[in-house]
Amino acid sequence: MQSAPPTINVPADVPSHSIGTYEQNWRQVTKDTGRLVLFAGDQKVEHLNDDFFGSTKQGPIAADDADPEHLFRIAERSIIGCFATQLGLVARYGRDYSSVPYLVKLNSKTHLIPVSQDDPRSRPWNTVAQAASLREAGLNIVGIGLTVYPGSRYEGEQFAFAAQACYEAHREGMVAVIWSYPRGEAVPNERDPHLIAGCAGVAATLGADFVKVNYPKTSDGSSVAEAFREAVQAAGRTRLITAGGEGTDVTAFLQTLHDQVNISGAAGSATGRNIHQKPLEEAIRMTNAIAAVTYGGWSVEDAVAVANGQRTFSI
Amino acid sequence: MQSAPPTINVPADVPSHSIGTYEQNWRQVTKDTGRLVLFAGDQKVEHLNDDFFGSTKQGPIAADDADPEHLFRIAERSIIGCFATQLGLVARYGRDYSSVPYLVKLNSKTHLIPVSQDDPRSRPWNTVAQAASLREAGLNIVGIGLTVYPGSRYEGEQFAFAAQACYEAHREGMVAVIWSYPRGEAVPNERDPHLIAGCAGVAATLGADFVKVNYPKTSDGSSVAEAFREAVQAAGRTRLITAGGEGTDVTAFLQTLHDQVNISGAAGSATGRNIHQKPLEEAIRMTNAIAAVTYGGWSVEDAVAVANGQRTFSI
Amino acid sequence: MQSAPPTINVPADVPSHSIGTYEQNWRQVTKDTGRLVLFAGDQKVEHLNDDFFGSTKQGPIAADDADPEHLFRIAERSIIGCFATQLGLVARYGRDYSSVPYLVKLNSKTHLIPVSQDDPRSRPWNTVAQAASLREAGLNIVGIGLTVYPGSRYEGEQFAFAAQACYEAHREGMVAVIWSYPRGEAVPNERDPHLIAGCAGVAATLGADFVKVNYPKTSDGSSVAEAFREAVQAAGRTRLITAGGEGTDVTAFLQTLHDQVNISGAAGSATGRNIHQKPLEEAIRMTNAIAAVTYGGWSVEDAVAVANGQRTFSI
Amino acid sequence: MQSAPPTINVPADVPSHSIGTYEQNWRQVTKDTGRLVLFAGDQKVEHLNDDFFGSTKQGPIAADDADPEHLFRIAERSIIGCFATQLGLVARYGRDYSSVPYLVKLNSKTHLIPVSQDDPRSRPWNTVAQAASLREAGLNIVGIGLTVYPGSRYEGEQFAFAAQACYEAHREGMVAVIWSYPRGEAVPNERDPHLIAGCAGVAATLGADFVKVNYPKTSDGSSVAEAFREAVQAAGRTRLITAGGEGTDVTAFLQTLHDQVNISGAAGSATGRNIHQKPLEEAIRMTNAIAAVTYGGWSVEDAVAVANGQRTFSI
Amino acid sequence: MQSAPPTINVPADVPSHSIGTYEQNWRQVTKDTGRLVLFAGDQKVEHLNDDFFGSTKQGPIAADDADPEHLFRIAERSIIGCFATQLGLVARYGRDYSSVPYLVKLNSKTHLIPVSQDDPRSRPWNTVAQAASLREAGLNIVGIGLTVYPGSRYEGEQFAFAAQACYEAHREGMVAVIWSYPRGEAVPNERDPHLIAGCAGVAATLGADFVKVNYPKTSDGSSVAEAFREAVQAAGRTRLITAGGEGTDVTAFLQTLHDQVNISGAAGSATGRNIHQKPLEEAIRMTNAIAAVTYGGWSVEDAVAVANGQRTFSI
Repeated sequence: MQSAPPTINVPADVPSHSIGTYEQNWRQVTKDTGRLVLFAGDQKVEHLNDDFFGSTKQGPIAADDADPEHLFRIAERSIIGCFATQLGLVARYGRDYSSVPYLVKLNSKTHLIPVSQDDPRSRPWNTVAQAASLREAGLNIVGIGLTVYPGSRYEGEQFAFAAQACYEAHREGMVAVIWSYPRGEAVPNERDPHLIAGCAGVAATLGADFVKVNYPKTSDGSSVAEAFREAVQAAGRTRLITAGGEGTDVTAFLQTLHDQVNISGAAGSATGRNIHQKPLEEAIRMTNAIAAVTYGGWSVEDAVAVANGQRTFSI
Repeated sequence: MQSAPPTINVPADVPSHSIGTYEQNWRQVTKDTGRLVLFAGDQKVEHLNDDFFGSTKQGPIAADDADPEHLFRIAERSIIGCFATQLGLVARYGRDYSSVPYLVKLNSKTHLIPVSQDDPRSRPWNTVAQAASLREAGLNIVGIGLTVYPGSRYEGEQFAFAAQACYEAHREGMVAVIWSYPRGEAVPNERDPHLIAGCAGVAATLGADFVKVNYPKTSDGSSVAEAFREAVQAAGRTRLITAGGEGTDVTAFLQTLHDQVNISGAAGSATGRNIHQKPLEEAIRMTNAIAAVTYGGWSVEDAVAVANGQRTFSI
Repeated sequence: MQSAPPTINVPADVPSHSIGTYEQNWRQVTKDTGRLVLFAGDQKVEHLNDDFFGSTKQGPIAADDADPEHLFRIAERSIIGCFATQLGLVARYGRDYSSVPYLVKLNSKTHLIPVSQDDPRSRPWNTVAQAASLREAGLNIVGIGLTVYPGSRYEGEQFAFAAQACYEAHREGMVAVIWSYPRGEAVPNERDPHLIAGCAGVAATLGADFVKVNYPKTSDGSSVAEAFREAVQAAGRTRLITAGGEGTDVTAFLQTLHDQVNISGAAGSATGRNIHQKPLEEAIRMTNAIAAVTYGGWSVEDAVAVANGQRTFSI
Repeated sequence: MQSAPPTINVPADVPSHSIGTYEQNWRQVTKDTGRLVLFAGDQKVEHLNDDFFGSTKQGPIAADDADPEHLFRIAERSIIGCFATQLGLVARYGRDYSSVPYLVKLNSKTHLIPVSQDDPRSRPWNTVAQAASLREAGLNIVGIGLTVYPGSRYEGEQFAFAAQACYEAHREGMVAVIWSYPRGEAVPNERDPHLIAGCAGVAATLGADFVKVNYPKTSDGSSVAEAFREAVQAAGRTRLITAGGEGTDVTAFLQTLHDQVNISGAAGSATGRNIHQKPLEEAIRMTNAIAAVTYGGWSVEDAVAVANGQRTFSI
Repeated sequence: MQSAPPTINVPADVPSHSIGTYEQNWRQVTKDTGRLVLFAGDQKVEHLNDDFFGSTKQGPIAADDADPEHLFRIAERSIIGCFATQLGLVARYGRDYSSVPYLVKLNSKTHLIPVSQDDPRSRPWNTVAQAASLREAGLNIVGIGLTVYPGSRYEGEQFAFAAQACYEAHREGMVAVIWSYPRGEAVPNERDPHLIAGCAGVAATLGADFVKVNYPKTSDGSSVAEAFREAVQAAGRTRLITAGGEGTDVTAFLQTLHDQVNISGAAGSATGRNIHQKPLEEAIRMTNAIAAVTYGGWSVEDAVAVANGQRTFSI
């Protein structure tokens, strides 16, 4: 089902001297498919050490995951569009993992303060120029990312930063990804499909090339994958990605991803815990299975075979 | 009733080297009539996806409207003074719709936080210089716009941004439009004619070329169109536009617009939902009907004929 | 009673290359008398449309006043030291009224939020450099003004802006006027003579050339004009101006002004509504009557004759 | 008891090209004794007109004090290390009093808002560069000063400004003085000797050359002058000054000062009201009496004779 | 047990022209062991004078400690990786103690405001560039440090500053140390091992070369030294240091340090009070005992002998 390479839509805020770089970054993250496998590794702030050590509801976390270098090892050896994490980590390990396509996450917050205490407020840590400067050290910096929380009483400062960052990223020929999550005292239901569609649209107006939203829930038993089409449409030319399935069942995860891409029309996924909580080799296979669905248009069955090590997906 | 081209009032903060550009932009948006048809497409933030998908009190929204490109298709093929939307969208679609006269909306907020939780706070997303830079890519950027909420506890930061943006726009030879809505804990009646006149005056002191206010309501049965004259006067040389009629009845809408222009002395309208919630061809005809009243001085009857496809208005 | 031209006190933050400009501006606004007739036209924000349309306690407002251009017509044809209003209006009308000496009001707020809701917070709209830049268009920009509210919980940010603006104005050779009004939860009596004297002193420390305070009230029946001397003294070389009388009785108004100047030692007045709420010709005569007292040292009787059109005051 | 000129301790943030200027300013303010007579005249903001007009608990304020120029007259004709006041006043009178060594007070607040309403917040009014620029007009600007309130919920922004100002002052070769007063909801006893010592230490870490603290109180009848040694020690090479005695008794005042210098080891005092509330000649003699104790190492008896006009102290 | 010099991990944000400086600073602070003895002297703000004068629970503080110069005397004559204190003190004493390797602490707050009043907020005092500028005066500035409080409602502004400071430090070839303490209304247990591990990870994402955390407590009787391994792992290539033991027993202190390094895998310690509250010679011996464990890999018994003056540790 892999379609012909889409025409690259270069936003008008990419200046002429950066169009080549932008197209190259776009091709690199989408593998010329218009889709994106984003390997998410920004949780060391967002969830502190909860995702990396001990156990979760799904069972024990692999011991490999206690060391941040685990993320880089996966990123280096898997088929991904980009690996998203904070500049500090990229800088710390980047010289030893210079082939990885990095997406620098520009803002982050911990999960310590609950919404009942205060609305979410994610502040910019680094500038686009700082992210871009890592290219001087030979690193492969393909883009930047950041989170906005529509409905937070601090949405305004986040939107402002997001609009600036997307614009600046385009000036540098880099791809911009916005995580857009409705959250705050004013948001009763974060998983409402219509609200999520709205948040996808916000990211489009902010200038994002890709928007990551949470996968909605429906309360009436209707198909989530179909309800999710509204968000894909609302994002327009900004391509929408989402979290894959929850839980540890690989087949179920890949089935959900397959539905998101093939029923809803999503352009891929941002996956973190479902990859890095596994031991290294298993994590790599899982990533490649995701890539098989996303970039290769493979069936769920074939992708599961990749995850099991029975088949190999390559580009 | 179309009058002779008004003398162009070039504000003193337009420097000599930008006077030509300013006059050209002014002529373009007013078609040499001193009036303005502003096609408003900034609601993807202000109302999230509510205006673009599903149904409203007036009935179902056309399926075309789910895709943001619908707005650009209308803007390209209708007679408008400018199409107002956020920089992210302008940049995303602009290279493919380069003939559209764009007005970049510089600030926006969602409607998620009700006034009962906090006063409205719309933060700047982009600078005038960033809007202007899109001209380098061949886009037709004619102006900038922004919203202020007099009476909000955050009015001060909004006024500050507005004054800066108008000044900077004029330095670049661009037209500045301010949406001025009284709102906040301190504002009991947002539709009071006298208060709206005050908000029109505020926009004039901020340096706006055009001010968009909401159409007032009168509580004593007196003529709204006549009460609205106070606002037109208070704005002085800053030209006042307003929302056209509410609801889906085309004739009623155009009659209200006609009254606003011909009784109140308004300089035109900013219209969004009454245009883009219609299918493409119908939306284009509706826009041109508005243009017929505004730029052409046509009667309501003739304008309705444009909306119905029985007549054609052109400039 | 007109004294010899005072020696011009050039503050030390006026650099040598701007001393000539400063002296020229000083002479222009004081007519070489050391006094100032400031025509205040910043109320379109401070009082919205309340001062310009409809009626007040003193009776109906002249229809002329509904149009902001009324202010410029008065300013052009009267004897004034300067006309104070926001940059947006100065820029809008200035090319057609280029002989008017303008004082650009750099901050403003609406009166919508009562002190019971929040302390007053007036934010800077424009910079001194922006005000100065209007000179490039041939406008006669003689100074800048701004308001501070000692006792407001936001006094700090206002003082900071005021100190910066006075300094910058002097760098440009412009005159700086501070409106200094005690207001906020912490201020029980805004009209206390001793508190007003304190606020005059604050303006002096901030670097103002002129400070405008409200005229105090005494609670013990003692002479207000004499109590007001404390404020004149506290301001030191910063010259103190105040509001003239209240109400619509011209004779009473001019008598109060005469007392302020000749008993208290004030250097003039800032007058708005008592001028612009009158029809054009009457407003011009009223302004000139004020000038006769202030610049000419005329008696109340003679000044009333000017207001009535029986005599002419000129410089 | 006057000791040999101390070696000048030039902080490492004074660049080589400014060392000469720094040493010259240091010598000027200390008269080569390492001690400082700071004449404080910043109260027109801190206490509004309360210190300058009318009466205090100690009796009537001299009429001279109603006019700010009184401060400059005293400063010009007395032996002082520096005269501290806001830039606006320095600029206003400075050309006529160019021999006075000025210390520009960079932040100030009124006393209108009580701690019960909000913690103290003193905002920067002017930059060090602006203070330094007055040297271009021939003024003798020897340093800058500012206040911090440890324990205020705004201590952070004050510390930040203080650190920046001390650094910048040193770049310009100027002396930096910090007023360090513990105050706020979190501070039950502002006069605790141990807390005051802590606040002296804070100023040292901020880079101050001199720190002014309030003189402590002891609750157990022990010697205040001895308890005060802790603060002198905590300040280290940053020299500590304090308020002299309270009340109007000259002998008692000078005795307290003598104890502070000779028992506690303080480097001098910052005195305002005890000087300027006196008529000019008396104020000058009082200042010189303070200088006799501080710079001259004179006995209380001899200093009182200076205050009485029976002896003359000169340097 | 001293291992071979570790390969220096130069972060990718160190530009080529600063790599040499970075390596030199790294070698200097680690003595080529990868470990760090940080002598902490920033408490004059964090604890005011409490740590320097009088008594603590462990007994009287040495009189030497009342004078800030005590810290510099210790730093000059002991074996340390760096001495951390505020820029103001570094500048004040640095010319006389130019051989000391300084780490400039860029932010600080007092302990006056309890968490029950407000969450901790440490504001930046100085920039990295200002710290670096002291090198011009011949000072040995090897790095910068700062504190973040994950879980504070102000964590966002602290993270932002930290990310900027680490980046800027690396541009200058300097080492960056982050103190990372969970604290605030949202943090019930600051000593939870898992939470501390999370805070170590945050510092890694922020770009720190070293992170200092508090030593955790376990509630179930399990080994703290073993529980602490989670934090060491979570920090990854960012090296983790911690406070040594509490109390005044030297042997117990050194045993805890030895466990931290040899059981947990920590890279050293940040020690303040356990050093500077001792008289000079004792303080120097204590510091060298710490160095013997940290840099020398000495046993507790041998290190105690250093503290007692029975043996000498040198590098």
